[in-house]
Amino acid sequence: MEDMMFDDKLQEECGVFGVYTKEDDVSIKEFDTTRMTYYGLFALQHRGQESAGIAVNSKGTILYRKEMGLVTEVFDDVVLDYLKGHSAIGHVRYSTTGGNSAENAQPLVLKYTKGHMALAHNGNLTNARKLRDELENVGTIFQTSTDSEVIAALLSRARIKYNTIEDALVEVMTKVEGAYSLLVMTPHKLIAVRDPLGMRPLVIGKKGDTYIFSSESCAFDALGIELVRDVNPGEIVIINDQGIKSIQTPAAKTSSMCIFEYVYFARPDSIMQGLEVYNTRYKAGGILYKEHPVEADVVVGVPDSGLAAALGFSHASGIPVVGGFMKNRYVGRTFIQPNQALRELGVHLKLNPIRSLIKGKRVVMIDDSIVRGTTSRRIVKLLKSAGATEVHVRISSPPVRHSCYFGIDTPERQKLVASNHSVDEICELICANSLGYISREGLIKSCEGADTNFCTSCFTGNYPVEIEEQEV
Amino acid sequence: MEDMMFDDKLQEECGVFGVYTKEDDVSIKEFDTTRMTYYGLFALQHRGQESAGIAVNSKGTILYRKEMGLVTEVFDDVVLDYLKGHSAIGHVRYSTTGGNSAENAQPLVLKYTKGHMALAHNGNLTNARKLRDELENVGTIFQTSTDSEVIAALLSRARIKYNTIEDALVEVMTKVEGAYSLLVMTPHKLIAVRDPLGMRPLVIGKKGDTYIFSSESCAFDALGIELVRDVNPGEIVIINDQGIKSIQTPAAKTSSMCIFEYVYFARPDSIMQGLEVYNTRYKAGGILYKEHPVEADVVVGVPDSGLAAALGFSHASGIPVVGGFMKNRYVGRTFIQPNQALRELGVHLKLNPIRSLIKGKRVVMIDDSIVRGTTSRRIVKLLKSAGATEVHVRISSPPVRHSCYFGIDTPERQKLVASNHSVDEICELICANSLGYISREGLIKSCEGADTNFCTSCFTGNYPVEIEEQEV
Amino acid sequence: MEDMMFDDKLQEECGVFGVYTKEDDVSIKEFDTTRMTYYGLFALQHRGQESAGIAVNSKGTILYRKEMGLVTEVFDDVVLDYLKGHSAIGHVRYSTTGGNSAENAQPLVLKYTKGHMALAHNGNLTNARKLRDELENVGTIFQTSTDSEVIAALLSRARIKYNTIEDALVEVMTKVEGAYSLLVMTPHKLIAVRDPLGMRPLVIGKKGDTYIFSSESCAFDALGIELVRDVNPGEIVIINDQGIKSIQTPAAKTSSMCIFEYVYFARPDSIMQGLEVYNTRYKAGGILYKEHPVEADVVVGVPDSGLAAALGFSHASGIPVVGGFMKNRYVGRTFIQPNQALRELGVHLKLNPIRSLIKGKRVVMIDDSIVRGTTSRRIVKLLKSAGATEVHVRISSPPVRHSCYFGIDTPERQKLVASNHSVDEICELICANSLGYISREGLIKSCEGADTNFCTSCFTGNYPVEIEEQEV
Amino acid sequence: MEDMMFDDKLQEECGVFGVYTKEDDVSIKEFDTTRMTYYGLFALQHRGQESAGIAVNSKGTILYRKEMGLVTEVFDDVVLDYLKGHSAIGHVRYSTTGGNSAENAQPLVLKYTKGHMALAHNGNLTNARKLRDELENVGTIFQTSTDSEVIAALLSRARIKYNTIEDALVEVMTKVEGAYSLLVMTPHKLIAVRDPLGMRPLVIGKKGDTYIFSSESCAFDALGIELVRDVNPGEIVIINDQGIKSIQTPAAKTSSMCIFEYVYFARPDSIMQGLEVYNTRYKAGGILYKEHPVEADVVVGVPDSGLAAALGFSHASGIPVVGGFMKNRYVGRTFIQPNQALRELGVHLKLNPIRSLIKGKRVVMIDDSIVRGTTSRRIVKLLKSAGATEVHVRISSPPVRHSCYFGIDTPERQKLVASNHSVDEICELICANSLGYISREGLIKSCEGADTNFCTSCFTGNYPVEIEEQEV
Repeated sequence: MEDMMFDDKLQEECGVFGVYTKEDDVSIKEFDTTRMTYYGLFALQHRGQESAGIAVNSKGTILYRKEMGLVTEVFDDVVLDYLKGHSAIGHVRYSTTGGNSAENAQPLVLKYTKGHMALAHNGNLTNARKLRDELENVGTIFQTSTDSEVIAALLSRARIKYNTIEDALVEVMTKVEGAYSLLVMTPHKLIAVRDPLGMRPLVIGKKGDTYIFSSESCAFDALGIELVRDVNPGEIVIINDQGIKSIQTPAAKTSSMCIFEYVYFARPDSIMQGLEVYNTRYKAGGILYKEHPVEADVVVGVPDSGLAAALGFSHASGIPVVGGFMKNRYVGRTFIQPNQALRELGVHLKLNPIRSLIKGKRVVMIDDSIVRGTTSRRIVKLLKSAGATEVHVRISSPPVRHSCYFGIDTPERQKLVASNHSVDEICELICANSLGYISREGLIKSCEGADTNFCTSCFTGNYPVEIEEQEV
Repeated sequence: MEDMMFDDKLQEECGVFGVYTKEDDVSIKEFDTTRMTYYGLFALQHRGQESAGIAVNSKGTILYRKEMGLVTEVFDDVVLDYLKGHSAIGHVRYSTTGGNSAENAQPLVLKYTKGHMALAHNGNLTNARKLRDELENVGTIFQTSTDSEVIAALLSRARIKYNTIEDALVEVMTKVEGAYSLLVMTPHKLIAVRDPLGMRPLVIGKKGDTYIFSSESCAFDALGIELVRDVNPGEIVIINDQGIKSIQTPAAKTSSMCIFEYVYFARPDSIMQGLEVYNTRYKAGGILYKEHPVEADVVVGVPDSGLAAALGFSHASGIPVVGGFMKNRYVGRTFIQPNQALRELGVHLKLNPIRSLIKGKRVVMIDDSIVRGTTSRRIVKLLKSAGATEVHVRISSPPVRHSCYFGIDTPERQKLVASNHSVDEICELICANSLGYISREGLIKSCEGADTNFCTSCFTGNYPVEIEEQEV
Repeated sequence: MEDMMFDDKLQEECGVFGVYTKEDDVSIKEFDTTRMTYYGLFALQHRGQESAGIAVNSKGTILYRKEMGLVTEVFDDVVLDYLKGHSAIGHVRYSTTGGNSAENAQPLVLKYTKGHMALAHNGNLTNARKLRDELENVGTIFQTSTDSEVIAALLSRARIKYNTIEDALVEVMTKVEGAYSLLVMTPHKLIAVRDPLGMRPLVIGKKGDTYIFSSESCAFDALGIELVRDVNPGEIVIINDQGIKSIQTPAAKTSSMCIFEYVYFARPDSIMQGLEVYNTRYKAGGILYKEHPVEADVVVGVPDSGLAAALGFSHASGIPVVGGFMKNRYVGRTFIQPNQALRELGVHLKLNPIRSLIKGKRVVMIDDSIVRGTTSRRIVKLLKSAGATEVHVRISSPPVRHSCYFGIDTPERQKLVASNHSVDEICELICANSLGYISREGLIKSCEGADTNFCTSCFTGNYPVEIEEQEV
Repeated sequence: MEDMMFDDKLQEECGVFGVYTKEDDVSIKEFDTTRMTYYGLFALQHRGQESAGIAVNSKGTILYRKEMGLVTEVFDDVVLDYLKGHSAIGHVRYSTTGGNSAENAQPLVLKYTKGHMALAHNGNLTNARKLRDELENVGTIFQTSTDSEVIAALLSRARIKYNTIEDALVEVMTKVEGAYSLLVMTPHKLIAVRDPLGMRPLVIGKKGDTYIFSSESCAFDALGIELVRDVNPGEIVIINDQGIKSIQTPAAKTSSMCIFEYVYFARPDSIMQGLEVYNTRYKAGGILYKEHPVEADVVVGVPDSGLAAALGFSHASGIPVVGGFMKNRYVGRTFIQPNQALRELGVHLKLNPIRSLIKGKRVVMIDDSIVRGTTSRRIVKLLKSAGATEVHVRISSPPVRHSCYFGIDTPERQKLVASNHSVDEICELICANSLGYISREGLIKSCEGADTNFCTSCFTGNYPVEIEEQEV
């Protein structure tokens, strides 16, 4: 939604949130689990705006609602009052295209041999097609195109062999490959699973005796939930009336968190792997200056994702930062796009330079990434038409040259401008006076202090797991 | 919808419609298959008003739309233009209660080992729970509570063993029990299946080289489709580019069509098993008079289902029929019900007697059935308050004493007034001066000429197949 | 709505309903005035389906809601609970075309020198343009194109001169010409006014000490309201806490009720001018047979408006009436019309002949009127394609040859088939074997017993008042 | 919308936009006037989110659409295509409470003696009640509670005396008092009027031969419209096919622009009276530091309106500015408010401090104003709970002590915290360590360069015109 006219961003695909409370726990008495999930998803809305869903465990039966729309559009008081249970999981999903996408809304709710179950999933399996083929060959039917359904099908089959769902999950984790942060709600448990590389974030919170899982800690703050820790790569965390239990599966590998979570996806106020996101962006701005210094009059961050790095760049360089753009936030889902002849207008209607700050100035324009290059070009031109004498573009991530297979929506590789253009060529394409990207090392340095290594495969093409059908 | 204030009717659960056309068939050029299905479902709307859905075969991929609402509410031109294919199936579903009923809308669309498939189903399996348990025990997950999903799960498993879907269907038919009229759309075929007893209707139509299936022939008339014949009990009919093919499965038994299709469910202009429905109702009216003659001044049919029998009764008795009621047809889904203290008002707002026709008259009131008795009582009282000196109630079906397990929504047995009251008691309960039901034999006689026997188990309790969990 | 595919009917333009209750009146305690108005409008819905509105007097302030849509769509419990008052008026309006028709929804609510006021109006002023011009020339602005606003503007000006609103109304009635049944709600009164010719119906009801006005008495029956009498031509009836008061204005002329209210517009269960509508239709059927006898096998009424006359024709002729058509009632507002090449289909989708009743039969087809002739032609052809050997059309009103200027939506005169064709020509046009219209005298005779004369100007062109801009 | 949880802001009431193009003007060929107005209103959305409307002059007839909702919600391509004309005016309106507010949506469209007319109005008349009384006393009816209707009624009466609408407007301007920026569209003209004090902004733009009016110049930038100048206080500007004409009425007084337009209402990228708004805010931040210096570690602006002043404060003080808050922008209209017991939560869900930037820091928190004080208190507490050791609040406007009668929605006077508390008391109330407001002189200085004087009556109580019914 935010990005209808800014199609030049990578897109996170999902956020998950879950709560389990003992029925006699009074510590969260001011909320029910459903409203806690509602506010939690509201805080995770930046991770997906296509659909929203909440499923609750109502004494073994699962009630749910999932629909296309924002959290605040899908739920009202009547629905929240209907969805009563001591355990709840929720999901927000990014807007993908395609006809029947309503069917892919989550949580996935199903009945299997051990009763009802709900799953909410963030990430992307890299061997989903192979797993689907195998399952179909033994008679499984699929009603969605989500990876959650693949996991559910594997889980229900594994459950026949194993006494507990945890044991079944351990087996499933030996089969699925890729990135997944997964919540599973069963009649008596709430379970969180993170893939062996820990690519997508997933944190544990606590309030009284109640445990909460969330894609990001920003969902905890307003609700007074204490951030306990991240779920570990390859870890299964089980909550039930007896409390919390952890299984560290043998699948776990070296932690390889997606570094773009820090660059762009996560909310700046979230703490992931011990590190606050805002800070890494601010530090990246400083490193960016050191790597690509420039003489200029003002620093302008492209709202909203370039603002933290702009401050860091400004403080490091001494060049004053100014609020160079007015962003119109009323765009909404129903904005009528200008016709094709006026492509430039789309960006301009949303982003207007503050002329007096730009006119006659040498401007450093800070953004978090360049994907196709089209929007960067339009923004540079806006600045120049507002009177900027020079526009120096600085980008707080390295050139994105490779597709992501781990839950990020990247355009086809040939549309990634950096996959087939040099930095100089891109600089010319976007009409900038100079262009500097932070180095991979610089970016990693900006994340110093995080207790994880990083997946940087979209910059390098070195994927941490084998990819089923890699685009060449 | 029609029946928000008339909860005293049995309810049909579904209607199905399907089309298969060769791509070069010009004979239906004025329609596409999707619009043909739209108009077909529109004609079948009386069989279900909760949800509507259409799935089309778009070169092997299935596109679909299914939602809560009437056919005319779910589809608009944009959607119909999107749903393009040379084959299509559609479904309307009756309004049941419950939280997540949206998930049960049909057609069921899925992917399995042989590609995409869509199913639309009318009827009710009597061994569904057993089949679900068996399937869950080998790891199957269920995402709806529909019988269609059970059939699909069996079919996908059978498909592994058999080379063709027809052969797989033959095996599935040996496992499922109960009533089903089923349409299956695969990448290259459209298949119709009717249960071995032929309990729910299903007919074949033809227009040029295009074949059409429908729950009732009324969907054919406006579209210029010729009624070919009924699908036979236990028959599988396959349409593909080579034409039509039939498999008469060994499962077929003595045809036992639900007689209530003639009494109430089907549209009067439909021809089922060679017999037009209206005529059986008209004849039942005549037989009813012979079985329960009465001296009276006017005959009044309760709109709309009692009108044909009223004419038959009038012609047999010589007592003139009058349009004794004005029915308000603007009720709609959103009608605000009067409060509890005014229960009688609900019926009266919808049905107003024409006083001058009733006042001072001995009235014969004809209706098709009595279920709970509450509405009959209200209507009798309306007539009396309009000045009727006597109200003689005549019912064109025998007392409904037993629940249906074959796709009709009957209330719990103890709520069927005839299950625990004699006719005299019912007469008193509904405040009538006399009450006469047509006999089972009389009703069967009214259907003379139909090439089928009948299931009359809701009158007799003699079910044609064993019932899994019979209410006692 | 009902008539999206039946554009060949004249259209009533509005219905009004009003209640005034003393605050301590317990006799209507089971309703509030607002819900009484809601159910009243629901019963009057046939008089207008475009918009609905209710205004209530909440201690001198007027609260209201009016919107496009059916009564059941515009109002829900939340709105009805908000609209609390001891007096209420409501309005339903017919669907006209045009851009800003939402602004014309009624009641008209306004503030003037004596406080708030609401008006609801059924009818059409014949000198509205002249009055508007005069008012505009002294500086009046108009925000709608309704006659109600003209009346309100005249009333507010007259109110300066006169001490009471009644006296002001008497003056206004000397200025406005044409047909109007008007309700006016002021802080302390509810007033009903009927034009000097009494062209549009308006009746008075009573329940306990509460008085009610309605376009038709059918709105009274379910609510237990006693029909007191019709408002007289030229009468002003005032209700306040002191009870009921009548002013018979000098403007009153010979009563000239619109005869089409009996033929088609009013609900058959309404009593107008002492006569039940159904009966006049039934009697017209008998007279029609006497005027145009025919040998035939069956009589078929075109649903719904031809059904009463069909029974009358049948009883007079001895030819049995049959329910020859199945009418699909799920059309709704959103029905997707078949494309232009398939014009016939529209009618057929809505109306399907019961073949067994028609095939090989000589059919008398009874309808209430022929306007353009297009629908009649389609229905005749349906009957013939269903196998009727002959179709004899009998119409229970005389040929409509002239436009109405009194609140009925007639097509332009040249589109009235009878304005430029003889009966023989029309017979040929509609493909009938014979065609007979009831005579004007016959129709008037069918209304014998009504305490009124009739306006029959749409048949004769003799208008009871001068027409401002008559179509020639 | 933005402010559902931030009720502690003054609220602008409206924005207006208008276009007049000669039919053969090719310079705006890429837009039609309607879409230009759509994008213009979109840029003015911050001035009103309750309703939006556009009226166009379609060869003398006015077509329009106005509804509750955002610009992007009210209009779609179908509506914009319907609204075709060479002249258009539009309006956005602030969300006020009350039952029938839909009726108050603008533009007001009406018919009067000289044909159709549409009005769009920003501001508030201070003698509206007196004018209404006078008009009602001569028979005028009012259908809305807007000042636009009062102006229209006066105008239509004046029009009788005068040959041109301009002359009539001159007379109307001698009668109405208060603040108004008004657009009037007649069959052949588009007219802009600004009150004699010039309290609300209104600017003139030009593109080719096409003239445009707008509340703010920010609506011009994306559309390539050149800002010509402000409409002068007391000026009437008329556009027709002959071009532009100005009448400087004798009513004009010393310009007294509302200073809060610079402080908060206007978009920072707008240029009003020759001065860019952003700059005044930035300068106010610097002055604020000089007037109320403080030792601190970081400067934090409250998003979004405190951000410019925060930069100014930072640059003046040398204290680094940080992006201290994450603002959740998905609130929307349908956000479910936390229950009463959790009042604090509302702000926190929307605004989350970036802990690492705040923890252990002495924070200067910059906001544009304090109205009730409740939100300021919550934000201060958020900062402290995030670990701020001190919170020094600096406000870039003086204490708001008096109600506004010129089109700004202020709470009742006793709810303005500064009307009955000293600065020290407020400091304590909001839990700040220190509190400093900019002085009136300082604020005026920040606007140096604007070619206007200012209304500062909400700080001083010295109103530039007499107030009809002043709150004491």
